[in-house]
Amino acid sequence: MTTIEGRLAELGVVIPEPAAPVASYVGHVIHNGIVTVSGQLPLVDGVLSQTGLLGAGVSIEEGAAAARICAVNILAQIKVACEGDLERIVRCIRLGGFVASTPDFTDHPKVVNGASDFMGEALGERGAHARAAVGVAALPLNASVEVEATFAIN
Amino acid sequence: MTTIEGRLAELGVVIPEPAAPVASYVGHVIHNGIVTVSGQLPLVDGVLSQTGLLGAGVSIEEGAAAARICAVNILAQIKVACEGDLERIVRCIRLGGFVASTPDFTDHPKVVNGASDFMGEALGERGAHARAAVGVAALPLNASVEVEATFAIN
Amino acid sequence: MTTIEGRLAELGVVIPEPAAPVASYVGHVIHNGIVTVSGQLPLVDGVLSQTGLLGAGVSIEEGAAAARICAVNILAQIKVACEGDLERIVRCIRLGGFVASTPDFTDHPKVVNGASDFMGEALGERGAHARAAVGVAALPLNASVEVEATFAIN
Repeated sequence: MTTIEGRLAELGVVIPEPAAPVASYVGHVIHNGIVTVSGQLPLVDGVLSQTGLLGAGVSIEEGAAAARICAVNILAQIKVACEGDLERIVRCIRLGGFVASTPDFTDHPKVVNGASDFMGEALGERGAHARAAVGVAALPLNASVEVEATFAIN
Repeated sequence: MTTIEGRLAELGVVIPEPAAPVASYVGHVIHNGIVTVSGQLPLVDGVLSQTGLLGAGVSIEEGAAAARICAVNILAQIKVACEGDLERIVRCIRLGGFVASTPDFTDHPKVVNGASDFMGEALGERGAHARAAVGVAALPLNASVEVEATFAIN
Repeated sequence: MTTIEGRLAELGVVIPEPAAPVASYVGHVIHNGIVTVSGQLPLVDGVLSQTGLLGAGVSIEEGAAAARICAVNILAQIKVACEGDLERIVRCIRLGGFVASTPDFTDHPKVVNGASDFMGEALGERGAHARAAVGVAALPLNASVEVEATFAIN
């Protein structure tokens, strides 16, 4: 069976070190084998890779690419939670996808698929998750997408 | 004691087959007796029954009716999770209600009550849940309401 | 070790009685040691202390103060869940912060910090939580901020 690290290598994805905790909240909390991951922005090397609203300048493809980066950053948190061993992932339980959008934008699922598809590619059957995708008025730092997650690990 | 199926029959509600899983996410995930249900739209027979924004054409009553349909679709997912036996429901733990609304709309609770009231009617004491209700800029497919859920089953 | 009640006394914060349950949803649900708290508004003595949108009249400081009140109301729910003994808190697992904002507002983290910082001040290490902060189109009763929470208790 292909390992998650093997899948990531095939995908050419390097899981980064997660950003340091800020203020009174942290990147993730582990309780009874459930990892709750804070909302992740499309940060690359600490820099926001995409800003703006879907429906006003950001295309569906660009939004989906940003959602994929959010998903990579979620795995960065999970990797720390698993002390480096991604095979300890039991299941991606849920992704919550927030898409900064105008009131007339309606393709949020295609945007959040950037994160969902990545979880499937990287985690296989363990990546099949429940999900909510909604269009919000605005996001921190003017990010186009934010994705939070819940995982089970052993 | 009245069964949930008995309550649904009294309400004249038929729980449909849930929509088939799409892409890399699924309708629900079961882990350790907790069912996490993906955000459900007011779909009837696969067709979106209501579109638009609260505060711009969709009335509170119409929105509440859409929220009730979302709740029926949540029970459709739960029925599959319970392998057809709704009596396996221990508790509806949480509903997350997203209402597509204009910035000046403020009656989100009355809209999401369409889902909350249905859970009470169908599940009795087991339907008393925690809830968040918020007004979002837009929803997938231009839906007026989306509701996600967490249930405990045995 | 400082108790939570001791910290609250130092902060000069009195945890109020929570608002009575409304309709078919409740203020919190306890299941297997996890308390899921409904979205809390900045209510003081049953009256909404702040309305409006961040980016259109409500300042960051005002929004953060409202978020802190939401956090106090979350502890009010938790205190009931713990039958009055806040030392039964194991961990604040997650806060979900919804900020009513215009599309061009981007300082949601500073607003939700009002809730996060309070959890740190009141709960110490047990207050370090995962979090999502997003900007929504509108909130119930025209509230500026709504915060939901998940806690572990014993």
